[in-house]
Amino acid sequence: MAKNLTTREEDYSKWYNELVVKADLAENSGVRGCMVIKPYGFAIWERIQAELDRMFKETGHQNAYFPLFIPKSYFSKEASHVDGFAKECAVVTHYRLKNAEDGSGIVVDESAKLEEELIVRPTSETIIWDTYRKWVQSYRDLPLLINQWANVVRWEMRTRLFLRTTEFLWQEGHTAHATKQEALVEAEQMMNVYSDFVENYMAVPVVRGTKTESERFAGALETYCIEALMQDGKALQAGTSHFLGQNFAKAFDVKFANKEGKQEYVWATSWGVSTRLMGALIMTHSDDNGLVLPPNLAPDQVVIVPIYRNDEQFDAVCEVSEKLMKDLRSQGVRVKFDKRDTHKPGWKFNEYELKGVPLRIGIGPKDVEKGTVELARRDTLTKEFVDAVDVVSKVKELLEEIQSNLYKKAFDYRAEHTTEVQSYEEFKDVLETKGGFISAHWDGTIETEERIKNETKATIRCIPIEGDTTPGTCIFSGKPSERRVLFAKAY
Amino acid sequence: MAKNLTTREEDYSKWYNELVVKADLAENSGVRGCMVIKPYGFAIWERIQAELDRMFKETGHQNAYFPLFIPKSYFSKEASHVDGFAKECAVVTHYRLKNAEDGSGIVVDESAKLEEELIVRPTSETIIWDTYRKWVQSYRDLPLLINQWANVVRWEMRTRLFLRTTEFLWQEGHTAHATKQEALVEAEQMMNVYSDFVENYMAVPVVRGTKTESERFAGALETYCIEALMQDGKALQAGTSHFLGQNFAKAFDVKFANKEGKQEYVWATSWGVSTRLMGALIMTHSDDNGLVLPPNLAPDQVVIVPIYRNDEQFDAVCEVSEKLMKDLRSQGVRVKFDKRDTHKPGWKFNEYELKGVPLRIGIGPKDVEKGTVELARRDTLTKEFVDAVDVVSKVKELLEEIQSNLYKKAFDYRAEHTTEVQSYEEFKDVLETKGGFISAHWDGTIETEERIKNETKATIRCIPIEGDTTPGTCIFSGKPSERRVLFAKAY
Ligand SMILES: [Zn+2]
Ligand SMILES: [Zn+2]
Repeated sequence: MAKNLTTREEDYSKWYNELVVKADLAENSGVRGCMVIKPYGFAIWERIQAELDRMFKETGHQNAYFPLFIPKSYFSKEASHVDGFAKECAVVTHYRLKNAEDGSGIVVDESAKLEEELIVRPTSETIIWDTYRKWVQSYRDLPLLINQWANVVRWEMRTRLFLRTTEFLWQEGHTAHATKQEALVEAEQMMNVYSDFVENYMAVPVVRGTKTESERFAGALETYCIEALMQDGKALQAGTSHFLGQNFAKAFDVKFANKEGKQEYVWATSWGVSTRLMGALIMTHSDDNGLVLPPNLAPDQVVIVPIYRNDEQFDAVCEVSEKLMKDLRSQGVRVKFDKRDTHKPGWKFNEYELKGVPLRIGIGPKDVEKGTVELARRDTLTKEFVDAVDVVSKVKELLEEIQSNLYKKAFDYRAEHTTEVQSYEEFKDVLETKGGFISAHWDGTIETEERIKNETKATIRCIPIEGDTTPGTCIFSGKPSERRVLFAKAY
Repeated sequence: MAKNLTTREEDYSKWYNELVVKADLAENSGVRGCMVIKPYGFAIWERIQAELDRMFKETGHQNAYFPLFIPKSYFSKEASHVDGFAKECAVVTHYRLKNAEDGSGIVVDESAKLEEELIVRPTSETIIWDTYRKWVQSYRDLPLLINQWANVVRWEMRTRLFLRTTEFLWQEGHTAHATKQEALVEAEQMMNVYSDFVENYMAVPVVRGTKTESERFAGALETYCIEALMQDGKALQAGTSHFLGQNFAKAFDVKFANKEGKQEYVWATSWGVSTRLMGALIMTHSDDNGLVLPPNLAPDQVVIVPIYRNDEQFDAVCEVSEKLMKDLRSQGVRVKFDKRDTHKPGWKFNEYELKGVPLRIGIGPKDVEKGTVELARRDTLTKEFVDAVDVVSKVKELLEEIQSNLYKKAFDYRAEHTTEVQSYEEFKDVLETKGGFISAHWDGTIETEERIKNETKATIRCIPIEGDTTPGTCIFSGKPSERRVLFAKAY
């Protein structure tokens, strides 16, 4: 295990790419744009899934599963949706291969051409609303509060592990409601579930807000989002929740009889987060030594590494280590005891630093003698000797401390890198020299938004829910502005 | 909720199809051969997943994720595998759609044709072994014990919900080992994990065995399987575990340096179960009133239905019900309290019978007065009044009793429908009149197996691991037979 990471200072993008591979999180596959999520990376994703799934269920949602394939014609039914999603996608045209007549291998069997092409889902609104039509007749059938964990495919020309891949994993919630108000409450609730999760488990502070019209999901009337800030000053959209109005109900003819027996169209929301969260997690906390994981999501919160020179020492150290492992586990701590004899302690120290395990415990023959252990924190890289009798309580205390320390560090970074500007000159200057979020007045037009984007590459990340709502003057056009919005360059 | 199920006697196949839809388990989608797994059906699948995932992890496996798409050329690398899997499959040929020039909708963009077609994975050996080549250099990297939960696609012409669908959900384990012996032990271990799960959680007895050469997985040297018997006398293969030898290692050039530094090919296994298990679960226990679920897998083990005529009664019944729900939950019982006022008690009784909830508790005003509740068992359809103070312990006792009763019933059915035959006449007679498993002597040749299959539609389900190993005479050819094997018509 060679570490030798490129530093963030040298090349942030290269640092990220190397880290993802060296920490055994993911790698590129033989299929262009598709990644392999390695066991260690997948274990983190499973932790993310488990906590989110619990939160979805606690808010009344159920899981279900809908087809991977969507008939091409479904996309044409919702006008704005087709432009947003039905373009760069994987198209299934045939359903059979055969041996080539010249013996050169296998070829597509042209006689097995589909009458209608199937699209590998880029998102499932169309197939789900086609199903909801059969499920909803009366107000008694509402609300439908359904979530799906699935793989989706969007054909991307430039891909990066976790951040933008052709195939990715996600969850997509799709709910149906009797009233507009109820759907709006749901969409906002799910934004809050996402921000709770991202802040409390991932230790990543987020800005909650709504998207401008041009940045909204194709088919949505309102898109709620949470935006995080990475260490290079670029923003990352960590989750979105859409109020879809009656667009999909009208496109797929989903009506219900209300209490008075009158037919009405159903109101919709959809909301999702994806393996992109892995990118946000990695980029927010990690350093030039490798990954740094918040304890609440670390597959292993603690690793115990035995130090020994001979069998006798090994036995003594093992006995103490195994007891400690048991004690920690009984307190709900996720702990790994790495007693492999194929690797030396120094190699292991390096490995777990690279993999971001929050706490490392080293136990050697002297520790056994003195009744101590060495405790090393990944976030601060500090070490201390602790009395063996105090280890369990110390570990629990430190795990909480690390969790809040990581959040605080990211929060402070974001505070330092959020700037209120008064002019377009200042805007461009801050964007170039400092980056981060820029709070600025905007006249509310798509045209201004577009021109700022073309000139600076900064986009409006969101109209923050909390924040300055004083009117002012647009930095670009000089026209009146209702309130400040948040700009940034973004992933 | 109209029940009116076709009975098993009338038409077993129709009974199954209706039950799956009426019990809200799954339904056909707008995409030919692809199903929608509805929330209730998916909740059962989640229970299956949770228990299996725990068992895989307890035996040292980790989860990971590999691409949905496999380049066509990968399939040609393992000769027997290509014939088995690369034929009836979904082929992605293009990666873009565009608006039709005549404004008629969206069409495939012919300029976005892939250089090499991508196959939607029917199984992942090829893409995974292409990855393992990068992960394995030394004996220190072995074993790799990896599992993937995923969707797969096999283009089926005739489909049935859960039993055979174009897209289905499954898990596929793929392990890599330094020695043949270790790989064989792994393959056998996973067959045993499957049989433990299916017998103890699904309450479905299985026969463990190995497949004959012609029934083996494409590319396997040995296929271990578990076979269950449905109520119509047909067998269902519930899980398979394959010893793949060095076939995939050779096809994808996966070698390791052994302790002596010599290069060797890696040994492989793969193993899987799918949403087909849902079919086995449904068909084994259910009756003409609907689904019957074993308590160990039921999403709701107990449902409480309040009975009342006015608000005052509702309040009194609710108070008792909610306390009972809390008490049961604190004992780890999965319980639902259905206090919807949109449906009457009779409707709810019917609904939960159809949905197979193991225990139903009815509480009315008289029960509140007398300190009793009515307890109804789904498996036996019996009811009894129980003192409220004894309910929790009674429920726990009954849940265990129902679990073992369902297993016993299925076990007895299988015992009655397993027949040892001495001649081909008897074989055909039993097959026609009684069905079930038939234990018969077979000469070991593919030719005899094939001819029996063509004449009777019965196949060799397995060579049982436990069972009669006395030599004899083949019922078909009269040639010597090493031992009896198990025949049946199968799903
Ligand atoms: Zn800075
Ligand atoms: Zn019978």
